[in-house]
Amino acid sequence: MKVHVAPVEKAYLDAAWRRLDRFTKPPRSLGKLEELAARIAAIQRTDRPRLGPGAVVVAAADHGVAWEEGVSAYPPEVTYQMVLNFLAGGAAINQIAAEADARVYVLDVGVRGPDFPKAEGLIQARVRPGTGNLAKAPAMRLEEAEAALKAGYEAAKWALREGATLLAAGDMGIGNTTAAAALTAAFLGLPAREVTGRGTGVEGEAYARKVRAVEAALRRAEEKLGHLDRAPALAVAAELGGLELLAAAGVFLAGAEAGVPVVADGFPVTAGALVAVRLVPEVRDYLFAGHRSVEPGHARQLESLGLFPVLDLGLRLGEGTGAVLAFPVLRAAARVLAGMATFEEAGVSEG
Amino acid sequence: MKVHVAPVEKAYLDAAWRRLDRFTKPPRSLGKLEELAARIAAIQRTDRPRLGPGAVVVAAADHGVAWEEGVSAYPPEVTYQMVLNFLAGGAAINQIAAEADARVYVLDVGVRGPDFPKAEGLIQARVRPGTGNLAKAPAMRLEEAEAALKAGYEAAKWALREGATLLAAGDMGIGNTTAAAALTAAFLGLPAREVTGRGTGVEGEAYARKVRAVEAALRRAEEKLGHLDRAPALAVAAELGGLELLAAAGVFLAGAEAGVPVVADGFPVTAGALVAVRLVPEVRDYLFAGHRSVEPGHARQLESLGLFPVLDLGLRLGEGTGAVLAFPVLRAAARVLAGMATFEEAGVSEG
Repeated sequence: MKVHVAPVEKAYLDAAWRRLDRFTKPPRSLGKLEELAARIAAIQRTDRPRLGPGAVVVAAADHGVAWEEGVSAYPPEVTYQMVLNFLAGGAAINQIAAEADARVYVLDVGVRGPDFPKAEGLIQARVRPGTGNLAKAPAMRLEEAEAALKAGYEAAKWALREGATLLAAGDMGIGNTTAAAALTAAFLGLPAREVTGRGTGVEGEAYARKVRAVEAALRRAEEKLGHLDRAPALAVAAELGGLELLAAAGVFLAGAEAGVPVVADGFPVTAGALVAVRLVPEVRDYLFAGHRSVEPGHARQLESLGLFPVLDLGLRLGEGTGAVLAFPVLRAAARVLAGMATFEEAGVSEG
Repeated sequence: MKVHVAPVEKAYLDAAWRRLDRFTKPPRSLGKLEELAARIAAIQRTDRPRLGPGAVVVAAADHGVAWEEGVSAYPPEVTYQMVLNFLAGGAAINQIAAEADARVYVLDVGVRGPDFPKAEGLIQARVRPGTGNLAKAPAMRLEEAEAALKAGYEAAKWALREGATLLAAGDMGIGNTTAAAALTAAFLGLPAREVTGRGTGVEGEAYARKVRAVEAALRRAEEKLGHLDRAPALAVAAELGGLELLAAAGVFLAGAEAGVPVVADGFPVTAGALVAVRLVPEVRDYLFAGHRSVEPGHARQLESLGLFPVLDLGLRLGEGTGAVLAFPVLRAAARVLAGMATFEEAGVSEG
């Protein structure tokens, strides 16, 4: 899979900042909103950016580690059930997306269970019915990692064809904060414990099992690939999973390639963002952090990507909720840059 | 002016939380979004809240202290010029409001200068052309404070009649962070220096003058009224100003009385919220903090009101920008509570 992402040009950033600094407001008084505006302008190669409808690709897949090691507060069949819930419109992401002018695309990239009935917004592209147990075996083969990446990429292309001007990735997969912790520890060179959180609410012995599973996975992958922060990103992702995290990476690749802002969600999806940026560093120019979750590893991921979160409301749900919740703020940022008057235009005295 | 605000009933809050805890998500995994949802439900006396169009009343007035003491980075005539800019649609609040489905009402409650030409959204209710210099004399008479409060109240009633289901107050007034610092120090019993910030960007000797002006105002008011945190709120506000801060208080009173969520903006408007809550404590039940600004006193105000900010993007502009930017998040919170499915409804297994 060949992806061409043009780096954002500094000239557009500079032009955006020049405009922002001439507007009728104390310089930089809109804080980080101005940074968002300038980055969106540069992505769109204009100094009058505009964001219209958005979309979120909610990638769903299962995790062998959830079945075999008991690392989650929820039974693994919840992944399947939640996909049905997304399709029926009953999940949090459906409500938030409806409010934020975003379409929901549900991508089955590796759910375990029977095929889903045909439904609007469902993209069936199951690479395999859940990963292997990363604590004991590769999560998937390299070709499967490529296929999962491609599934996310194609789903995003579909959303773009249907009019999305702003893209988020979301995730559903019982056990996926375990895979995300392993990936994050691998890429950032951090110990498992520092990036392994409570996920959907795992406590006590189950949490200890989760940490041990991440540690075992890292040891296993390291024996095979050597230093994980220097090994090929796709090989590392194949070892540690999961399928939906790779799909999220594919969404970011497609959005960046199309010149559209892409918004990361919580800890699992941002692990996907790490994969995408390792594969194509220019993706970073197109990437925004919708929010900061309570997962301890999420802040580390955002630091390493050099991103600040638009929202910080203590979310820990996933599904793309924190990403889509940030859409209106990104749109407002763009609109400020497109529509405000300068001091000269408005006849306002300067300080 | 008699205002009747019904306290929010705990039964509605409890019912909202019961629903939220049955939805298809780990309990409380939407973090503070769930708190927003529950509070909006209780305000609307329902467990299916819904927020439609919003409005922001941008109250504008001048400050004698800006003319006489040089406490601002901008010349005082900017207040007048910015009102024209609001009416022409060139300001930040115009852009943000357009994106957030909010109408902008501009309330001239005390701008210095000629009358404004008639314009859509302009409410002309000038109580006096700017306050007195609070460092040396009362900002206004008690009857003027009442009139400014009433002007905000009436402006909000107009916005409500025109369909607002969600209300913010915004501010424009060169010098108003000086008045807001004095009010905040008075009500919270804090030294001037702790709550006096850089406003639109004042530095060096001008900043020192600003602190001295606040200190002088507090001494003067205290000599007259005794302990300011125990003196009648309206009398304190009359001493320290400003007219637009009182108008903001009036907006909050009207919104709360009508059973509508009211959203505070930055440091000046939240000083108005302090006045409103001192006058009618039940207003607190209806009040939300749109954001936390970089003004050091703003965090202190929010603490004292027991509010968390929806956004924290380093804004320091005012005009209601940080309040209106939070509207889509409040709407999404309401929608989550109105529309999500429970575990039973969706057939999803629980942890």
